[in-house]
Amino acid sequence: MKYRALCRQLGYEFTRPELLRQALTHRSHGSPNNERLEFLGDSVLNCAIAARLYQTYPRLPEGDLSRMRAALVKEQTLAEVASGLKLGEMLMLGEGELKSGGFRRPSILADALEAIIGAVYLDAGFVAAEGMILALYEPLLQDLDPKTLAKDPKTQLQEYLQSRKLALPQYEVLAIRGEAHEQEFEVECIIPGLNIRSLGEGHSRRSAEQNAAVAAYQAATHD
Amino acid sequence: MKYRALCRQLGYEFTRPELLRQALTHRSHGSPNNERLEFLGDSVLNCAIAARLYQTYPRLPEGDLSRMRAALVKEQTLAEVASGLKLGEMLMLGEGELKSGGFRRPSILADALEAIIGAVYLDAGFVAAEGMILALYEPLLQDLDPKTLAKDPKTQLQEYLQSRKLALPQYEVLAIRGEAHEQEFEVECIIPGLNIRSLGEGHSRRSAEQNAAVAAYQAATHD
Repeated sequence: MKYRALCRQLGYEFTRPELLRQALTHRSHGSPNNERLEFLGDSVLNCAIAARLYQTYPRLPEGDLSRMRAALVKEQTLAEVASGLKLGEMLMLGEGELKSGGFRRPSILADALEAIIGAVYLDAGFVAAEGMILALYEPLLQDLDPKTLAKDPKTQLQEYLQSRKLALPQYEVLAIRGEAHEQEFEVECIIPGLNIRSLGEGHSRRSAEQNAAVAAYQAATHD
Repeated sequence: MKYRALCRQLGYEFTRPELLRQALTHRSHGSPNNERLEFLGDSVLNCAIAARLYQTYPRLPEGDLSRMRAALVKEQTLAEVASGLKLGEMLMLGEGELKSGGFRRPSILADALEAIIGAVYLDAGFVAAEGMILALYEPLLQDLDPKTLAKDPKTQLQEYLQSRKLALPQYEVLAIRGEAHEQEFEVECIIPGLNIRSLGEGHSRRSAEQNAAVAAYQAATHD
């Protein structure tokens, strides 16, 4: 079978290989494609990762678990796992997507991986899909550092400053641009003790502050 | 056991009843409470409902499946299922929450139901939790009408007007109130052919429009 190498890497043999074929078919190639399988696989992935984090970190509050899961199931992470499986080479894409390099696009790779998870769920149930997910994610799960990964940038910056007994950062909105439903915020993060001023932009005040905190944290820790 | 009636309604007997007790304990009552179980149960619920919808509606595109799921797992729906189980009477709440009627609050009821789902998952695995979820949701699943439930109010209104060959509705922002990060939008929905003008409010322009569409649809279909 054409997909033998992929199945070996997935550690899973399909009873119905047509499900794998469908999971690798982008909507630009026609029907049946992987859009519905992606919907299914996304929720199976979320559930398997939630259960694993719940059991691995019995003392972490749910906010931390939630942030860790978000980092593990976000498009970029999925696309990296998909690249490791060389999914791009096996995707069936329409001509336009082929020409524009769709087989390298993170969203297309991530969707295909979720669709494969959905296909395994349909082929053999939750436990089989969970087993494959945990095997694929094992290296990432080993690398997880709940102390940093789980924390948002503002919290991370604040704890860093507290550990050095420095004053907490101040955030100031410098500008709000654009119409009401698509505003852009520009925020400055100021750390007086380190003479650091950094800027962040975002579609909400909160996201602009988080981005400013990222820049400030980098400036503070690279001095 | 204190929870016998509840277990009968859930159709599930716990091997570890302390998990059920924890699922019914709100954080205001102390630790261990149901916050982490809720995180887990939320993802199990999402997955079980996604799989059920995927299999029940083989022709629906993933956008419709996604909207149907959102309607089934939203706080209000969960709180209604929880009320049917009389969860409120069994919750362990702190004194402040007790006095302020926390046992009736939709968010507290919804969280407790999700936590019970997480507890069953821990007690006996995915298939047991899925079985309980589908039994609890059976009446709701029977009532689901993909033609209406799956569609957001604006789409529903638009299709209704098209089916009667009427001009499409217009939406106008009447007012934007409040500071940038907590704005309130007021939108008017106008259907010239039916002489209908309805108002909607929301924290985004989109949600205000959707609310205005709900009111306009009701006005249009009750004439």
